[in-house]
Order: sequence, then C-alpha cells, then structure tokens
Amino acid sequence: MKLATLKQGGRDGTLVVVSRDLTRCQSVGGIARTLQAALDDWDKVSAELELVYDMLNHGHARHAIAFDPALCHSPLPRAYQWADGSAYINHVELVRKARGAELPESFHTDPLMYQGGSDSFIGPRDAIIAASEDWGIDFEAEVAVVTDDVRMGASADECAQRIRLLMLVNDVSLRNLIPNELAKGFGFFQSKPASAFSPVAVTPDELGMGWHDGRVHLPLRVTLNGQPFGCPNAGVDMTFNFPQLIAHVAKTRELEAGSIIGSGTVSNKQGGLYGSSIANGGVGYCCLAEVRTYETIEGGKPQTPFMRFGDRVRIEMLSERGEDIFGAIEQQVAPLER
Amino acid sequence: MKLATLKQGGRDGTLVVVSRDLTRCQSVGGIARTLQAALDDWDKVSAELELVYDMLNHGHARHAIAFDPALCHSPLPRAYQWADGSAYINHVELVRKARGAELPESFHTDPLMYQGGSDSFIGPRDAIIAASEDWGIDFEAEVAVVTDDVRMGASADECAQRIRLLMLVNDVSLRNLIPNELAKGFGFFQSKPASAFSPVAVTPDELGMGWHDGRVHLPLRVTLNGQPFGCPNAGVDMTFNFPQLIAHVAKTRELEAGSIIGSGTVSNKQGGLYGSSIANGGVGYCCLAEVRTYETIEGGKPQTPFMRFGDRVRIEMLSERGEDIFGAIEQQVAPLER
Repeated sequence: MKLATLKQGGRDGTLVVVSRDLTRCQSVGGIARTLQAALDDWDKVSAELELVYDMLNHGHARHAIAFDPALCHSPLPRAYQWADGSAYINHVELVRKARGAELPESFHTDPLMYQGGSDSFIGPRDAIIAASEDWGIDFEAEVAVVTDDVRMGASADECAQRIRLLMLVNDVSLRNLIPNELAKGFGFFQSKPASAFSPVAVTPDELGMGWHDGRVHLPLRVTLNGQPFGCPNAGVDMTFNFPQLIAHVAKTRELEAGSIIGSGTVSNKQGGLYGSSIANGGVGYCCLAEVRTYETIEGGKPQTPFMRFGDRVRIEMLSERGEDIFGAIEQQVAPLER
Repeated sequence: MKLATLKQGGRDGTLVVVSRDLTRCQSVGGIARTLQAALDDWDKVSAELELVYDMLNHGHARHAIAFDPALCHSPLPRAYQWADGSAYINHVELVRKARGAELPESFHTDPLMYQGGSDSFIGPRDAIIAASEDWGIDFEAEVAVVTDDVRMGASADECAQRIRLLMLVNDVSLRNLIPNELAKGFGFFQSKPASAFSPVAVTPDELGMGWHDGRVHLPLRVTLNGQPFGCPNAGVDMTFNFPQLIAHVAKTRELEAGSIIGSGTVSNKQGGLYGSSIANGGVGYCCLAEVRTYETIEGGKPQTPFMRFGDRVRIEMLSERGEDIFGAIEQQVAPLER
C-alpha cells in the first residue's frame, strides 16, 4: 500500500491512498483524516485503507484524482519522533578518517544514532532554506521506517514486527556548523535543520524481495543538478538493520506509533575516490561530505563545494522492474528571506 | 490561565481548563479537544479558554469537576518538539569540573542545547521505569516554555512574543549511560528516557512579577523521599533566558506551535558542598549529579547514590504568596516488568 499527505486541510495535511504506479490518489477522510491518525489506529484502519488501494489499482476508485507529488507534504508533515541512525559504518569511517580520527571498535556493535527534531519537516519538493551558503549545505540520502508502538526493552525481533511504512529521506545537514556543535558535546542541533521525506510512504510488502533482513535491498539514486551522483545499494554495508536500530531506541523508552527511524546516509564501501564516483564506474555517494572526504584523503583538501543557492538534489528509488516506488524528493536550495 | 490534560479520550488525552487554585477543572471539547489542538489555533481559541477560566475561578462553571493531578498526563502527552537547554552554566561547570574539564569561554555566549525525544512523555505522577538501577537514574528539575509558531531566523525579542505556556519538567537522566554515549559524539540518546511535566501548564501572566526578563523568578522546590533537597531560584544564574534559547533553536529551522523548550537543570551558584545543601542553609540542588559532583570535588568520590527503585522525587513551584502554581510532579522509580 502507498500513502501520501496532501498540503491541504491543516497542519497535518490530508491523507490519501496512492495507486501503485503513482498516477492516482484518493482521500480517505472517512477512514483516517491524517497519516498520524491512521498510524494511531493502524490495526483497525489499515485493512480499510488496503481496500481503497486495491480499488485504485484496479481503476475502481470512484473519487480518484491525479496524483501530483508537487502537492505533497512529507507523509508526516510533523512527527512525534525522528531518530536517525548511522548504520552505514563506511560513511562514519570515511567522515572520521578525513579528520584523522579512528573508528572505535564499539561502533561495529553499538549503533550510532542521533535524536532529530520533528516538528517542522519540509515537503519533498520544498526549497531547502538557509540563511547562508557558508553553513555548508549538504544533502544526505537515506531510507527510513515508520513504526507502530514499541514497548521499552523490545528485542530486535519484536521491533521487526512493528515496522509499518518505509520512506526515503533527505536529512539536510549544515556541515560547517557541525564541528563547533559536536565540540560542545551535546550532539547535532543547529547543524540539522528540517528534513524532507519522499512524497509517498509504502508498506514493506511493496518492495517484494527488496525488503528482507530488515534492510532495503535496492539502489538509492541521487542526482545533483541533473547529473547522476550516487546509486549505492541500501541493503549493502548496512551494519545495523532497522530492527536493531529500533531496539536501540527502545532500550530506555517506549516508541509511540508514527515514530520515524532513519538509516543514516547510505554508503557502500568502495575502493577510493577514483573508483567510487559514478563517472568512474562506482556507485557514487549519497552526500557531498563523502566525496569531499575522499578528496581530502587523496588530495589534501576537498574540491567539490557544498550546495549553493539554486543547486538541486533529487533522491529516488526504483524497483527491480524500474518502477518508481516512493516518488522523488527533489529540492532546490534557496536563501532565507528576511 | 491554567490548562491540563486528563488521561482519557485517546493518545493526546482531554484538555481541561483548571481553576487558579487547582481545585476544579472543566473540559472544553467544544473549544479544543486537546492542548495541541488549542496551540495549533491559539490566536483563535485562547480567548474562549480564558472565558472558561474566569468562570471557573468565580465558581460559575456549570460543568466543573474536582481537579485531581493523579488523573493528569503531561500537558502535552506527546509533542512535536522538545529541546532542552543548559542555561544554568553553574550546572554545566560543576558537572564538567567533576571530570576535570574546563568550561569553554564560548559557553557564556553560545547556548548549549540538546534535542530531546518527545513521542512518549510520562505523566506527572507516573513511575520512572528503568530496567536497571545501574543506569544511574537521576532527576533534573527544570522550567520549560511552550511556544507558538516561530519563524526561522527570529530574534530573541521576537521569540519572547511567541511564548504561550510555562511548565515544570523532570528531565530524567540515566547518568551512567552518559559517558559512553557522549564519547560516541552524537549527544544524548539512551541516556535521556521519557521526561515528565507538571500537571498544569500556565500562561506567563499567572506568575505575575515572577515572570520577567524571559525568566521565572521563583524557587523551584525539589523533595527527595520526603526530605527537602533543593529550592534554587529559577531566575538566578540563568545565563540564557527563554527567548535566547528559542532563538538558538530557530537559527536554522522553524518551530511549530506546541514546541517545548526547557531551561536545563536549575542551579544557583553557591560556595561549595557544605554551604550549598539545604541542611546547611544553602538552596540545595535540582539533580543528584550536582551533589555528587560537589562530593567528588571535595572528597574525591561521590557519596550520594543515584535513585533506587522505590525512591520518590517531588518537584513543584509556589507563588510568592505560597500558592501552588503548576501542581507537583511526583514520581517513584520502578523496575521494568518484562
């Protein structure tokens, strides 16, 4: 099943069921007005939503309208929980290597996660607003899951059963604000502005064999200003799977329905700078920081700039048959108007 | 005006207006079913809520019932944003001193804040559940504000106009999980389980002269197992006021209505261990970590244990006339049942 949220009807938007081919959608106010409302009551309403989905896919939905990702907000325009992992250790290792730091051994057994802010996500086609290019604006292409309620102390096996939806994420980062912020000791804050999610959230069965072992085994495709930039497989080199990430969150607290847990920047371990870019036959990158790190390791300093006003990033994932699964995140960087 | 949320009617509970003396309350479903709904539409509904408040205070509310803090959830049982400052630099300095670290000069000009999780707050009389006493269970008594929408880049003066409500907080911390977690570089995560808030949230005018300069100028009273433990004045030694903390959050993102911004552990600068405890004429502490730090500085190691199962903490604030403003947070530590 595929679900989206239109930018109408209030702060949480209006829930629509979207056809598998992303061409049509239908609002389902009689079942659940918003995606959060559906998640709050998932066991009760998901079967009804599936019925609408079946009708849409068979051309029998009477009130279907054309689906336009440009009218979408993030599936959850605001959420109660957004916690992001760094499950692709290669990304962590690379970023640390650039500043001469070793990767602690514990990073292979203890997931690295940060608590994100979730009150004001931006839509999948909204501009990335920043007051200054000097902030070092970067995209981070990721996969995320949305959970049902999870009890404190739940095992990874138990957490696997509580995953309801999958989405793509652009976890925007302000790289030049990170060093000072991390030096303060309390983690990211101003350096992690509002994230954006794919137009559509899908139930795991939509990925078929692409979803197993708690991982999404499909390439995540990133385009920067129209040029292919990355297509690493999200199922490769993911050290911790989603159930393990959720269990990490649940160790000392409950999770409420609608919690979003991110994978961290997707990153496949490759040989080095020259073999890893798409132009050179590699799978490329899901953020600018990685290529800048390769450049720093190999040439002493980064060459690729961070995003400038007007730059555009596109993030999407296709099925094995080449069909668009989530719709594309496509965002342009723009200056804050004062 | 005083508002509370009863544990009935769904995940977000039921909004009630509470009389100034905390004896009676009335549900206001016709105006706003939940506190988040009221905050989403504050300009429109607050005047109507104030009318109910006036009637309650004058004994004219026709459907008033007795107000029982034990039936309350936190005013926002789940929120979209919970960011906590460390505005009392004395607390930060003390905790760092215990581990031999200096306070960076920038800490006096650049607020220290962490992004908290907000999907599953616990009620003001709920147990603090932990799987192990070895986690180093500590309370942290704080003050918090709830904001309206705040635009990205808003000045502190502008932020001051966006404060809608005040609450007390118990920002529970698992001290023994903190060192490893901070060493990983991404800030608190498992070490900050669910927080609890006071039974009642109040509009700033309820504090009279106690609210000025963006600070709450009243003692925050903490009792541990029935013994007075702290009563520092929340208006003293608060290096950054609430408008400054909000502006710090808003530098790179918007805040949505219903965002909760905490002060950090209230802490007044005192002379040292022996002069600072209430028994010795001081104003005491708002967390166990501080007294343990004094003990470490003066005696080489901490003496006071962290909270054990069965221990009880009470946090409240009285007006200058001795009236209970927010109702008391009162929580007992209990083991996780598996």
